[in-house]
Amino acid sequence: MNNTQSTHSVTFAPEGRSITVMKNSSLIQAVRKAGLHINASCGGAGVCGKCKIIIEQGAVLGGESEKLSQKDYNNGYRQACTTEIIEDVTVRIPEESGRQKGGLSTDIPPRHRARMHVFNIDDLKKAGIFYPPVEKLRLELLKPTANDNRADVGRLIQGLADQHNKHRLVTDLPVLRKIRRALREKDFLVTVTLEQPVNNRSKCHLLNIQPGRWDHRNFGLAVDIGTTTIYGVLIDLHSGKILAKSSCYNPQMSYGEDVIARIIYAEKPKGLVMMQELVVESINGLINDMLSEVTLPGDDNKSSPIDRDEINSITIAGNTTMTHLFLQLEPDNIRRSPYVPVSTFFPPMRAADLGLELKRHCAALLYPAISSYVGGDIVAGVMGSGMYRTEQLTLFIDVGTNAEIVIGNREWLACAACSAGPAFEGGGITHGMRAVEGAISDFSINPETLEPMNITEGNKAPIGICGSGLLIIVATLFEHGIVNPSGKFNDIDTPRIRKGRSGMEYVLAWEDECAADHDIVLNEVDIDNFIRAKAAIFAGVATLLDQVGLQVGDLEQIILAGGFGSFIDLDSAMTVGLLPEVDPDKILYVGNGSLMGAWMSELSNHIRQDVVSVVRKMTSFELSEVPGFKDQYVASIFLPHTDLSLFPNAGKRFATCPPPSGRKHFRS
Amino acid sequence: MNNTQSTHSVTFAPEGRSITVMKNSSLIQAVRKAGLHINASCGGAGVCGKCKIIIEQGAVLGGESEKLSQKDYNNGYRQACTTEIIEDVTVRIPEESGRQKGGLSTDIPPRHRARMHVFNIDDLKKAGIFYPPVEKLRLELLKPTANDNRADVGRLIQGLADQHNKHRLVTDLPVLRKIRRALREKDFLVTVTLEQPVNNRSKCHLLNIQPGRWDHRNFGLAVDIGTTTIYGVLIDLHSGKILAKSSCYNPQMSYGEDVIARIIYAEKPKGLVMMQELVVESINGLINDMLSEVTLPGDDNKSSPIDRDEINSITIAGNTTMTHLFLQLEPDNIRRSPYVPVSTFFPPMRAADLGLELKRHCAALLYPAISSYVGGDIVAGVMGSGMYRTEQLTLFIDVGTNAEIVIGNREWLACAACSAGPAFEGGGITHGMRAVEGAISDFSINPETLEPMNITEGNKAPIGICGSGLLIIVATLFEHGIVNPSGKFNDIDTPRIRKGRSGMEYVLAWEDECAADHDIVLNEVDIDNFIRAKAAIFAGVATLLDQVGLQVGDLEQIILAGGFGSFIDLDSAMTVGLLPEVDPDKILYVGNGSLMGAWMSELSNHIRQDVVSVVRKMTSFELSEVPGFKDQYVASIFLPHTDLSLFPNAGKRFATCPPPSGRKHFRS
Repeated sequence: MNNTQSTHSVTFAPEGRSITVMKNSSLIQAVRKAGLHINASCGGAGVCGKCKIIIEQGAVLGGESEKLSQKDYNNGYRQACTTEIIEDVTVRIPEESGRQKGGLSTDIPPRHRARMHVFNIDDLKKAGIFYPPVEKLRLELLKPTANDNRADVGRLIQGLADQHNKHRLVTDLPVLRKIRRALREKDFLVTVTLEQPVNNRSKCHLLNIQPGRWDHRNFGLAVDIGTTTIYGVLIDLHSGKILAKSSCYNPQMSYGEDVIARIIYAEKPKGLVMMQELVVESINGLINDMLSEVTLPGDDNKSSPIDRDEINSITIAGNTTMTHLFLQLEPDNIRRSPYVPVSTFFPPMRAADLGLELKRHCAALLYPAISSYVGGDIVAGVMGSGMYRTEQLTLFIDVGTNAEIVIGNREWLACAACSAGPAFEGGGITHGMRAVEGAISDFSINPETLEPMNITEGNKAPIGICGSGLLIIVATLFEHGIVNPSGKFNDIDTPRIRKGRSGMEYVLAWEDECAADHDIVLNEVDIDNFIRAKAAIFAGVATLLDQVGLQVGDLEQIILAGGFGSFIDLDSAMTVGLLPEVDPDKILYVGNGSLMGAWMSELSNHIRQDVVSVVRKMTSFELSEVPGFKDQYVASIFLPHTDLSLFPNAGKRFATCPPPSGRKHFRS
Repeated sequence: MNNTQSTHSVTFAPEGRSITVMKNSSLIQAVRKAGLHINASCGGAGVCGKCKIIIEQGAVLGGESEKLSQKDYNNGYRQACTTEIIEDVTVRIPEESGRQKGGLSTDIPPRHRARMHVFNIDDLKKAGIFYPPVEKLRLELLKPTANDNRADVGRLIQGLADQHNKHRLVTDLPVLRKIRRALREKDFLVTVTLEQPVNNRSKCHLLNIQPGRWDHRNFGLAVDIGTTTIYGVLIDLHSGKILAKSSCYNPQMSYGEDVIARIIYAEKPKGLVMMQELVVESINGLINDMLSEVTLPGDDNKSSPIDRDEINSITIAGNTTMTHLFLQLEPDNIRRSPYVPVSTFFPPMRAADLGLELKRHCAALLYPAISSYVGGDIVAGVMGSGMYRTEQLTLFIDVGTNAEIVIGNREWLACAACSAGPAFEGGGITHGMRAVEGAISDFSINPETLEPMNITEGNKAPIGICGSGLLIIVATLFEHGIVNPSGKFNDIDTPRIRKGRSGMEYVLAWEDECAADHDIVLNEVDIDNFIRAKAAIFAGVATLLDQVGLQVGDLEQIILAGGFGSFIDLDSAMTVGLLPEVDPDKILYVGNGSLMGAWMSELSNHIRQDVVSVVRKMTSFELSEVPGFKDQYVASIFLPHTDLSLFPNAGKRFATCPPPSGRKHFRS
């Protein structure tokens, strides 16, 4: 397909701003991409009829609406959200759709998402640390003779020393029982599966022995047990390639959305066993899915599936509660002051002993945790993101109900957990929801009329507001002086702002534009919850920096992890004071750092060994016990912060933003 | 009871030799104790009527016989074997009962058994090495606070470091799962069960945790899996005391008497599993027996039984085949050249994984072996006898079907196995048998008449000849010139020596004196088998000495182990050339060295750690592959040896022994 067929240009009259969009994009997407505002309450679902746009040149598909008169239609009016671009067009946004008088339209900032950090096996190879913790090694041994009648095991051990420089082995009875036959079946050519030592003072574990040559068939799994979602990858440990990925909801969700609810459930009779079984079954399901979808080129170019036997290791990361539930360790003290987990280090295990449908030679490694609320997922993130080996002073944040913060670099690390509350996951917000279809995730406003442009996940009629949408909405309302630094609405005369059940509220979408049976609003209690959440995180960062004698300005890099991290609009985050103000180029998004860390540990025993020293290195702060945290928190429950010197750019934006035309007076 | 009541003197007229015997001894026992000969074919069973003795003074009980006329009885004649001594007596052995003309009687040498080496816990205590491999340690921990909310496991580990200087711990999931409750049940007072590291580079294993104080309750087991008999002891690891002992036949006996037969059985379908189950069930039976018979003083002076839970370790020793069968390792290559066992080292295990009815926290240690025919029983014997730490050049021999030989001291060790054949266990001997009731185990001869004095186990009518009897019979026949250095009978005119089915033979007992339906004889084939057996052992010793550049004269100590060792008459053994000639005081008998070694390993991790270095230090020689062994063997198939300079005393005895009166000529 050539360029003229796959993309089209859209020119906005009268000024002539022009952009290129993919063929079949909708016109509202083109508007958003151009950094323009167009009123749109219904998220692009074609319901509200507000995003009227005029086609000045070129043909489009669709765009009819009962909210559009035949006359308008004949004059080129279309509904932007349901109009499909099929050739180069010139369009114009009419004033009634939010165009500013005398201007093109309200410019809305492009969304700055963090740069994505992508893990690459070649990096490990270049660094010379691509050697999986569980290796397969081929051995060709001499046959016993009268002058050399060492025991089979002695012969094997000597062979590993001579041919692979492997020393200090330990094994177990089931393997001992296999050795005699394995050696003799293919004339003393065997492949052994070895688990490398966890540290220099540990031993190699001889996990398995197979007759013949199998050193090219070595597979591993990495799993992240998230509170909401469980992710797995199947890895070819010989090549380092990912062969399959899979994920599923964590079925414990049915027994409680957050870790506290899960712990409470686990305290019921048989609750803990049930919690464990649910997650074990899910992981077994992921393994089955991934195994069934992969075939590799085998001998004679026939494709060969991967046998369950050939999975030799699994690395699992999760937060401290998820890890406890998975291991059937009673988690109840995690939720009770002084928040004591059973364990933060977990001994090397066998996958089969954990109920996983893997063979008994398959090693299982659980990522160690730091404390009850800084878990193995964060440690894995620090490993997976490379934070543990960077020289730059880095802030690592995984934002969720509990935001975990790590500050430091290769030399030192400090961490803390902030109880942010569920606002970023849509919890505690009147019309909050998860980032699924119908969730408002992008937003702009016509500063004159205060008419919104809501963009929803999947361009469906809005159902509610997800975390990333909430951030953008609050930042936008604040930037435009609609909400003051205390999070209260200024008294502005517009139907969009009204008194509701929980203080003043802004109506994002009217009931008839929604897929909900009510108006979708954001009220002052919601904003307050949001501010408290962002304040908890920022105060955590500030306190932790203070504890190590540094300041926000010293940060050289920010790493965002977790599902929410990728959707954070960086400008909005700095506007509201969620993230410290730094050059957006210094912000990196690592996606599921927990999974990435688990996966890297599968590929490099060097990294697996480093985990221990990273954990030992990491100083954990219990924020509630740190003097000064409370002051930091109080100072942070403003937009963006009481100390504007920390947010010079946000301060500037706030100062220069034109007051809305309907504004009457500011409330303080 | 005072002295006059419990013992009596027996004076032998006319010369007046006098001895003291226990009250109620039989007169034949008194004769034997006096070092005198009296004819006695029937082993002291009162059948043959040959041991007539005259009571000259004092009263006796019993001694009647139908072989004794009323007249003789009235004249004081009694049958020595059925006469009970009830007061001081003077007796006379008449010429017809074997008294030499003109002399008191034929002097027969006292039997020199080796000094018994007795293991004493105080030796370990004095040496400062009484600390069991599995310890119980009490810990009083601080409760968590907001400022000290380490994980439970971290708190425990720190407590072990601070209070007991224990570092580098590892544990497993079942223990992790118990820690939380255990800590809190008795207010953070707990007792942990720790397995010490096997070597300095290994880790401590946290095997168990109990709430409260239990460090005084720690019990262990030591087991010797013998081919014939399984022995067990139950040990209080806190005091070091033996609480119970038990033994049973190895039920594998029903499937083959020796290791080769067992291996062949194990090669049948399900044979190996069956062999394993038999021995596991037997050990379980021993454990039950011992547990049921012991109670200890508990709290409040109430006696408390020992709970199965309180057994924390078991150490097991056995020969290489027994160990393979117990672990279900295929033993078939042990019996086939080049005699390759599956393994000689065995990893630390859990008793429960071996099928033993012990809790999963109970550690199991298997004694390592050296080779297919120098097994863990011998290694345990070297440990248990203290050979591994002596400075004296020591020869350790365990005589059985396979005699194992170890030579060396604390600096170095060399070992070999000799296939002696079953002669010492009564196998391959026409009327050979095990040392049970009715087995001829002591013997002397009237050199004039060649009439025997047979003494049997239990003073029962003879059924056959056991190993220790065989040794004494051959030595006696040889000393008296009845059998020549080649093991052939000299041509002597007496009804006791006759031509039988397998060459010439000596009739030890006539059919009507026996509990067998035939005469009991020793023939030239039997003697040849005996000589081959002793030659194999002596040639092994000589070859091993030769390999390390030493000579018999360099030996400073001989340690005898195994059931047979305690019954060996040292003079006879040197007369026939089974043992090298040394001062009998230098010979030590350790009994069941295998059990003793297992038991010492239960009590001292120092010894358990030393085992590894002892095994590494021990050079194993495959005698059949050593040039010179065959020559040594050929030189040894004479009585005592072709090189009489090796046996100066035996040579002397042989040279000075008067020829039997009935002798005609020597056959060569």
